[in-house]
Amino acid sequence: VPARNPPSHHRGIAHRGPREDRGVIAERILKIARASFAEQGYAATTLRSVARDADVDPALISYYFHNKSGLLDAALVPPHAWTDRLAAAAATPIADRGAHLVRCLIVSWEDDPVAAEFHRAAILTAAHEPIALQRLAANFATHILNAVSARIDDDERLLRASLASTQMVGLAITRYIWQAGPIATLPRDDVIRTIAPTIQRYLNGPLHV
Amino acid sequence: VPARNPPSHHRGIAHRGPREDRGVIAERILKIARASFAEQGYAATTLRSVARDADVDPALISYYFHNKSGLLDAALVPPHAWTDRLAAAAATPIADRGAHLVRCLIVSWEDDPVAAEFHRAAILTAAHEPIALQRLAANFATHILNAVSARIDDDERLLRASLASTQMVGLAITRYIWQAGPIATLPRDDVIRTIAPTIQRYLNGPLHV
Repeated sequence: VPARNPPSHHRGIAHRGPREDRGVIAERILKIARASFAEQGYAATTLRSVARDADVDPALISYYFHNKSGLLDAALVPPHAWTDRLAAAAATPIADRGAHLVRCLIVSWEDDPVAAEFHRAAILTAAHEPIALQRLAANFATHILNAVSARIDDDERLLRASLASTQMVGLAITRYIWQAGPIATLPRDDVIRTIAPTIQRYLNGPLHV
Repeated sequence: VPARNPPSHHRGIAHRGPREDRGVIAERILKIARASFAEQGYAATTLRSVARDADVDPALISYYFHNKSGLLDAALVPPHAWTDRLAAAAATPIADRGAHLVRCLIVSWEDDPVAAEFHRAAILTAAHEPIALQRLAANFATHILNAVSARIDDDERLLRASLASTQMVGLAITRYIWQAGPIATLPRDDVIRTIAPTIQRYLNGPLHV
């Protein structure tokens, strides 16, 4: 016996039951929730407003995500395609890793609308919500950390990953969110060629030149 | 004869007339306005709500800033101390300019509460308001542009300034707004030593390594 039943509103519709459609409906709810957390903020977002915009019963959101905090947690789980690409970039030969990480960022923002929408919402939400920020920062840092050689001591590895993050975040915000200046329209191969050496130095180059 | 009179509410108070106190009152209004634009957004900010929070007559805000667009314009004028420091950094010998620009950013965020409050509000406002972003990006780019050698052709100068901005913006957001990872607590001299070489390469080093 499950601890909680699906809301009665949905129980009767056999061919659209929450079990079958869970993936599709949950993703629609999460998409609305991400946009709302980003634009309205966490405090102004309610299960009711998300339910209305997603055209589902509020009880279904409670059933899927428990409460608003659970909804935020789920909204901040990065898409698998993004984390898979990041892991692949972090596993390339160390000498090429700067370029692979920059390319990975570009592909996710430019060729993968789901990842791009996730990044945009996550960055805007993080600006205001400390809980969102901590979740995202921890997640991102773990992946970048994997790109730093394991043969370096822990403090320096963490610092190098953090330095690489400053450039990755700055590139994403200026090119994709602010879309300001020549960096916004620079061909992607030029972005990789100019930014990769910075990431590469942070990963395994001399920290003080 | 001035085109517009101060609101009658204030006209009678001789020792606190808007003429004498204009600087102080305007600054109080702008501080409230900046916080509101950053936290509530441009659309949700009203002259009335700013007036209430600043404890002044709404007519005084109209008198000083004309309308909401004028209030945003005024709120986004960077503090003189910041632009003066940036201009000074851009005028140092080219070989030291990367370090001076990073130091300038650190001093403004850590030693100058007025500039820090301005930066924070401007970055948060820019995330949502294209008009704010364009104003800020143009302003910032002009100053960074001055740090790039005038002997380089215009397209490359603009690109180099834009690249430097990606790292400056990424540093500011991760260290001061997100306060995430080791970069948030790294001693300022270490920040300068590790980040300056990146800015320096963007200013006058080889763009493709």
